[in-house]
Amino acid sequence: MPASQASQASQVSQAEFDRLWGQLEPVGRASSGGYRRFAWTAADLELREWFAAACAERGLDLTVDRAGNQWAWWGNPDEAGPGLAIGSHLDSVPDGGAFDGPLGLVSSLLVVDMLRREGVGPGARPGARPGASPGNRPGAGPGAGPTRPLAVVNFTDEEGARFGVACGGSRLLTGALAAPRALALRDDAGTSLAEALRAAGRDPEDLAADPAALGRVGCFVELHVEQGRGLVDLGRPVAVGTAIWGHGRWRFELPGEANHAGTTRLSDRRDPTLAHATLVLRARELAEQHGVLATCGKVRVEPNGVNAIPSLVTGWLDARGGDDAAVRALVADFNEAVAAFGGTLTQESWTDRTPFDTGLTTRLHAALDQAPYLPTGAGHDAGILANAGLPTAMLFVRNPSGVSHSPAEYAEPEDCLAGVRALARAVKELLG
Amino acid sequence: MPASQASQASQVSQAEFDRLWGQLEPVGRASSGGYRRFAWTAADLELREWFAAACAERGLDLTVDRAGNQWAWWGNPDEAGPGLAIGSHLDSVPDGGAFDGPLGLVSSLLVVDMLRREGVGPGARPGARPGASPGNRPGAGPGAGPTRPLAVVNFTDEEGARFGVACGGSRLLTGALAAPRALALRDDAGTSLAEALRAAGRDPEDLAADPAALGRVGCFVELHVEQGRGLVDLGRPVAVGTAIWGHGRWRFELPGEANHAGTTRLSDRRDPTLAHATLVLRARELAEQHGVLATCGKVRVEPNGVNAIPSLVTGWLDARGGDDAAVRALVADFNEAVAAFGGTLTQESWTDRTPFDTGLTTRLHAALDQAPYLPTGAGHDAGILANAGLPTAMLFVRNPSGVSHSPAEYAEPEDCLAGVRALARAVKELLG
Repeated sequence: MPASQASQASQVSQAEFDRLWGQLEPVGRASSGGYRRFAWTAADLELREWFAAACAERGLDLTVDRAGNQWAWWGNPDEAGPGLAIGSHLDSVPDGGAFDGPLGLVSSLLVVDMLRREGVGPGARPGARPGASPGNRPGAGPGAGPTRPLAVVNFTDEEGARFGVACGGSRLLTGALAAPRALALRDDAGTSLAEALRAAGRDPEDLAADPAALGRVGCFVELHVEQGRGLVDLGRPVAVGTAIWGHGRWRFELPGEANHAGTTRLSDRRDPTLAHATLVLRARELAEQHGVLATCGKVRVEPNGVNAIPSLVTGWLDARGGDDAAVRALVADFNEAVAAFGGTLTQESWTDRTPFDTGLTTRLHAALDQAPYLPTGAGHDAGILANAGLPTAMLFVRNPSGVSHSPAEYAEPEDCLAGVRALARAVKELLG
Repeated sequence: MPASQASQASQVSQAEFDRLWGQLEPVGRASSGGYRRFAWTAADLELREWFAAACAERGLDLTVDRAGNQWAWWGNPDEAGPGLAIGSHLDSVPDGGAFDGPLGLVSSLLVVDMLRREGVGPGARPGARPGASPGNRPGAGPGAGPTRPLAVVNFTDEEGARFGVACGGSRLLTGALAAPRALALRDDAGTSLAEALRAAGRDPEDLAADPAALGRVGCFVELHVEQGRGLVDLGRPVAVGTAIWGHGRWRFELPGEANHAGTTRLSDRRDPTLAHATLVLRARELAEQHGVLATCGKVRVEPNGVNAIPSLVTGWLDARGGDDAAVRALVADFNEAVAAFGGTLTQESWTDRTPFDTGLTTRLHAALDQAPYLPTGAGHDAGILANAGLPTAMLFVRNPSGVSHSPAEYAEPEDCLAGVRALARAVKELLG
C-alpha cells in the first residue's frame, strides 16, 4: 500500500475509541465494578443489540449463524469469499473486567471506520463515507482496491460462565460441541440452554453446526487484551500470538457423611472438607513440580451449612501449560490423590496445545514492526477455529498488571489505540 | 396420680403417631430426600398452618408472640399461670432430617391427646373428649385434677438456616437478640428478615422481645431426637438432658487477588483458596489438640469460577465442647492462623455452656425410671430459655446411627413412642 495510506491508518482518535467504549460501559455492570454478562441473559441481549446497531451504522450486513454468533459482513463472502474475519466476544466471567472480549470488538469496529475513511476495503472507493451503500457491493468498480470481504464477528458465550462450556459459540459453529449436548447444559439456576434460547426469542431447534457460515471465512484475526505480563516485561504495546497452551477442566467429587457439626465425634466423621482442602494444596504442589498451572477456583459444598458436616464437596481443577505432557502428568498425579480419598475425577474439557497459523503469524510479525511473539494460557475462539483448520492469528494488547477476569483488568488508552492501529495494519496486510 | 392413670398414659398407638407424622412428611421435602424448611418460606408457613390446625383440632388457644413463636395453650396462663410448656420447632437445616424439631412437636400434640383421654390436664374432667370446650376453662370444676395450664410451643427459626442466627425465635422472645439487628439479617438471596416477615403477612414493626409471653411460662421441657450415639452406647431409648455445651460460630474472610487461572504465574498469585484449605485442616488439628469439636462446613468463594483465581474466600468455623475454656483456646489459636494469612476472624455467635435446671432434671430422671443423663453439643431453644432464667429440661430419644442434620437422620418407631410416653409422664409429674 502507498506510504500515505499507511500513515492515514494511524488516524484513530481517543474520542472515537471512548465513544464506543462508553456505550458498553454500563451494560451488565455489577456492584463489584466488574461485569456479569452471561450468555443469553438480558445484559447479553443488550450487547447483541448494541453490536447490531453499531454494524448497521457502518452499513455492514448482519447475519446470525446457526450457533448464535453474529457476523457483520462488508462485502459479500458468497460472491467474493472466503473473506477475512476479525472480532472477539462481548460476554464475561462473573465479575469480569471490561477489556476481555469487548476490546477486540471495539477495535474491529474502529478498524472498519478507518478503512472506510481511507477508501480501503472490500469494493470501497477512496473517500467513501462509512455506511455508504456501495461498500456492500464487492468489486464495485475499477480502482476499488482490495476486494476481499471483511467480517466483524461477535462470538457467543466465549467464557462459558453460565453453562460451563467455554467458547460455546465457536465450538457449536465448528461442530466441536454437538447441539443436543449444548441444549441440555444447565446454568446454576437449573435453566437449560434450550430454555435460555427460547426465552431470548430463538428456536432451540435451529441450534447446529454451521459449515456454510464457517465456509465464508478464509482466515480469522482476534485482538485481545493480554492476560499476563509478557508485554510489560518486553516493554512493547502489542504482540502476535503463537499458540494457546493445552488446557482443561476437571471436576472432582468427594462424598462425605452429612451430620451435625456439634454432636458428631471427630472419630465418627466422614468430613469431605478435609479431603477437599488437602487436594487444593496438592494441586498447587503438583503445579510447581510439573512446571504448569493448576487452580481450584470453584467449589460446591452440600448443604453448605455452618453447623453441618457436608454430604458432598465438589471441586474443580483448571490445569494448563506450555507442554501438554506435563499437564497430563499433573492430572494423573492429581487423580491418584482424589482416588485416595474415595473421590472421582471427571474431565469436563481438554484442548491440546493449539498453534496459530505459522504463515499468518509470520506475516503479521513482519507487518507490525517485528511485534514480539507470545503464547497464552487462556482459551479463545481463535483456538477453536484453528483446531477446525481455519488459518487463525491473535494480537495481544499490553496489560500493565497482568490481571484479567477481574474488575481490576486494564489496558492504557494509548495501548488500546496502538492495538487498533495494529489491527488495521494487519487487516490491510491480509486484504491487500 | 393413681396407678390406673399411669398405665393409661402408655396408651399411644403407632397409628396415632403415624397419622400426625404423615401430615408433615411431604412439607418442604427436597429431591435429596431431606428437608428445606427455612424460616418464613412457603414451607414454613405451611408448617405453621399445620400446627395451628392441629391445635384447633385439640381445642387449644393459639397465640403468636411478638417474636413469631406459636403458643397453643390449654388452660389460661394469665389466670392460672405460669404454666408448663412443651414443644420444639418445625424448621430445618438445608437438607435436614425429618426428626430434628418435628419429633418434639408431634410428641407434644400426642401427649395432649393422651392427657385428654385420661382426663388429666388443666381443668379437664375425666373422659372429656379432645377439643371439648371446658378444657379451655382452667379449674372448671371440682375433681378436675391438675389445674396448671399447659402450652405446646412451636419456636420459629431454630436452625437459623436462612438468616444465620440459630434459635432466632427464642432469642428474640427473651431479648437475647435485639429486633433491629434481627430485622437487618439477610438470607443468601439478599432478602432481609424484615422483608421476609412482610412477605409472610406480618408487620416487622411488631417484632420485639415479649416478656409477657415469656412470663406465662413457669418451666419448659423440650423433647428432641438425640444427635449422637450416647443412648445407643447406653442401650436406652430416652435420656434426660444435663447441659448444652458452649458453642459458637466464627466467620473468617481471606482476601485474594482476582485473576485468570490460565495466565497468572504461580509466583504472581494471591490465591485465597490455599489459605482457606490450610485453615480447614488447621481447625481439625486444633480440635484434636484441645479435645473439642471444630468444623468448617460452609464456604463462599468469589467469584467461584473454574478459570478464576478468587478475589475473596469466606469460611466459617463452628466450634463446641464440654469445656468452654478449651473452645476459647482453640479459637484463639485459629485466630492466629487466620491472621497469618492476612485474614480476619469475626465471632458471629457464642453461647456459654448452659446447664439445665437441676431440680427439674433430677425430678424427670426419677419419674422416668432413672433415665440416663446426657449432655449435648447442639444448641436448642431450651438452652436460650435456660439462659433467660427459666427452669428448663430436655428429653432425648435414641438415634441408632447418631446422624442428624441429614436425610439419614432417624429414630425407630418404638423409640419415638417411648419418647411420647416419657414426655407424658414428665408432663404429669410437673402438672401434678
